[in-house]
Amino acid sequence: MTGELPTITLKAIGVIRNEIKQPPKRVPFGWEKVISDIVVDSGLTEALDGLGEFSHIIVLYWMHQAAAGELPMKVHPMGKQELPLVGLFATRSPHRPNPVGKATVRLLLRQGNVLKVQGLDAIDGTPVIDIKPYIPEYDSAANAKVPPWITNL
Amino acid sequence: MTGELPTITLKAIGVIRNEIKQPPKRVPFGWEKVISDIVVDSGLTEALDGLGEFSHIIVLYWMHQAAAGELPMKVHPMGKQELPLVGLFATRSPHRPNPVGKATVRLLLRQGNVLKVQGLDAIDGTPVIDIKPYIPEYDSAANAKVPPWITNL
Repeated sequence: MTGELPTITLKAIGVIRNEIKQPPKRVPFGWEKVISDIVVDSGLTEALDGLGEFSHIIVLYWMHQAAAGELPMKVHPMGKQELPLVGLFATRSPHRPNPVGKATVRLLLRQGNVLKVQGLDAIDGTPVIDIKPYIPEYDSAANAKVPPWITNL
Repeated sequence: MTGELPTITLKAIGVIRNEIKQPPKRVPFGWEKVISDIVVDSGLTEALDGLGEFSHIIVLYWMHQAAAGELPMKVHPMGKQELPLVGLFATRSPHRPNPVGKATVRLLLRQGNVLKVQGLDAIDGTPVIDIKPYIPEYDSAANAKVPPWITNL
C-alpha cells in the first residue's frame, strides 16, 4: 500500500514569534502563559478578516526542530520513563512521521497580518501551515475518554 | 517576509476509505453518521498501539480535491450567500493556501493498521497526514466565543 501514499508539498503561510528560542528541557514547560505573535504572509492579510470574532483559534504548525531520521515506533510520553511505552500516534510527541503540531489557543488580538495568541506550544521561528477558527461543536468532543497515564503527565 | 517562508514536504501515512466517493453537493451533508476506515501504512502499525484507549482522535488530512489555482481571500462560509463574506482563515473552507483538514472523530475500533472512525468529513481516497489522541484539557477550550453567523450554518 505504501506505494499509493502521495507526497504533499506545503508552503508556510507565516511564522511564530515569541521569547522561547530553544526547545525547553523542562517538561511540562508551562506553555499556557507564553504569548506569541503569528506573523502571517502580508499577501494573506485580508484572509484573516473576521477571525477576530472568535475567542480561540486552531494553529497547525511545522515542528521544524523535531529530529529527522529513524523514528521509534513507540515512545514514553513526554520522555517520562515511568509512563508506559505507547505507539507514537497515541502521543503528542513532535517526533512523528509528519511533525505537524496542532494547538488550540486563545486569540488575544488581531492587528493586520499579526495574530497575538496565548498558550501556543511552539518555539520562535516555527513555520505556520494553517489557521482555523475554533468551533466548539465541531472541535470538541463530549465525554471523551483517555487512558490513565494522561492524568499522570 | 514571504521569502523566508519555507516549503514543507510531507509523505501521507495512510488513506481514508468510506462510501463517499465524491465531494457532496448538499451542505451541511451529515458527516456525523459516516463511518470511515483509516488505513495506515502497514509499516507504521506498531505506532498505533495504545491509541485504542482513547475514545476520540484528531485526524489531519490532505483535502486533495480542493480546487488549486487562485484563491479568493474572502468567502461566504459553506458557499451560503446569505452568510457574511469573511476571510478564508475565519472559515473551515477546504479552499485554503494549504488544504489540510482537521477533524475530531470518535474512534470505534482499532484493528491492526486500520482505525474505524465515525464522523470524519473526508471523501474516499483522502490521504492522511497525521493521527493524534484527543486530549480534552489540551484540545478543547472552555467558554469559547464564536460570531453569530456560526449558529446559522
